[in-house]
Amino acid sequence: MTVQLAGRLATRGDTPLGDRCPIDRTLKMIGNRTALLLLREAFYGATRFDQLWKRVGATEAVVAQRLRELVAAGVLEKQPYREPGQRTRSEYVLTSAGHDLMPVVLGLLQWGAGHTPGGGAAMTHDGCGAEVRAVVRCAAGHDVDESDVVIAASGARA
Amino acid sequence: MTVQLAGRLATRGDTPLGDRCPIDRTLKMIGNRTALLLLREAFYGATRFDQLWKRVGATEAVVAQRLRELVAAGVLEKQPYREPGQRTRSEYVLTSAGHDLMPVVLGLLQWGAGHTPGGGAAMTHDGCGAEVRAVVRCAAGHDVDESDVVIAASGARA
Repeated sequence: MTVQLAGRLATRGDTPLGDRCPIDRTLKMIGNRTALLLLREAFYGATRFDQLWKRVGATEAVVAQRLRELVAAGVLEKQPYREPGQRTRSEYVLTSAGHDLMPVVLGLLQWGAGHTPGGGAAMTHDGCGAEVRAVVRCAAGHDVDESDVVIAASGARA
Repeated sequence: MTVQLAGRLATRGDTPLGDRCPIDRTLKMIGNRTALLLLREAFYGATRFDQLWKRVGATEAVVAQRLRELVAAGVLEKQPYREPGQRTRSEYVLTSAGHDLMPVVLGLLQWGAGHTPGGGAAMTHDGCGAEVRAVVRCAAGHDVDESDVVIAASGARA
């Protein structure tokens, strides 16, 4: 059982949704490994180019390009900082929109920890200590099964 | 405020985590736009190569390669089907591990609907009608703020 589609989405033909689909619009901005590893590091607290570059393990040129794209996407913002005796540099900090990607990033972590061999990661709730999970819920407070999710295009034509 | 890191993750140096990180292992398998669009279509109920290829809008060769990778990743499985008078073909169906990617795929949709211009998508809970969201919760039933998520490497060395 998969999700339910309603309205125009339910009756669409076999043509790509392209930019009418918010998933695709998101993927065009952040849907590549280096961008998502940079977001991992941002969620883990790294802000400086040298740290980001080394921790992601891509070339400096690729990381610089991806950072420009993440800033253009409104996910990271550049903030000036200055070490004593050095020139002013930029650090990269998650915006409010960037923080909103937490369910995606932790969802990727959860999936890899559960379904791929290798070291896992425990995600726990500080204070209560219970396991943290990326889940799908409704505003009325119900856990929602996949087959009970109804997706309908809204706004512009889709 | 970002997530909290504990244990070895908190004290790691500026080296890539690589395959010790479950996020990176996940990204190596599904962290590209075509794979994630194929997963969108799988969640939307498409199963046949012709449908998947046309709806994703990539070339047949790229889609065939990505489908092989998704099958190898254990996210999709091939199932034989046969139309009357035709040869047996394969359709691609989400596995249990594939269904576990729902928070990621719906999280990408939610982010794009909220943060990118263009048509959105309403996700509602069938029956109750309330808005559906990808969120981070703990097993004790609390909504969890980002700064209250504690991530620690577990299992193999990280």
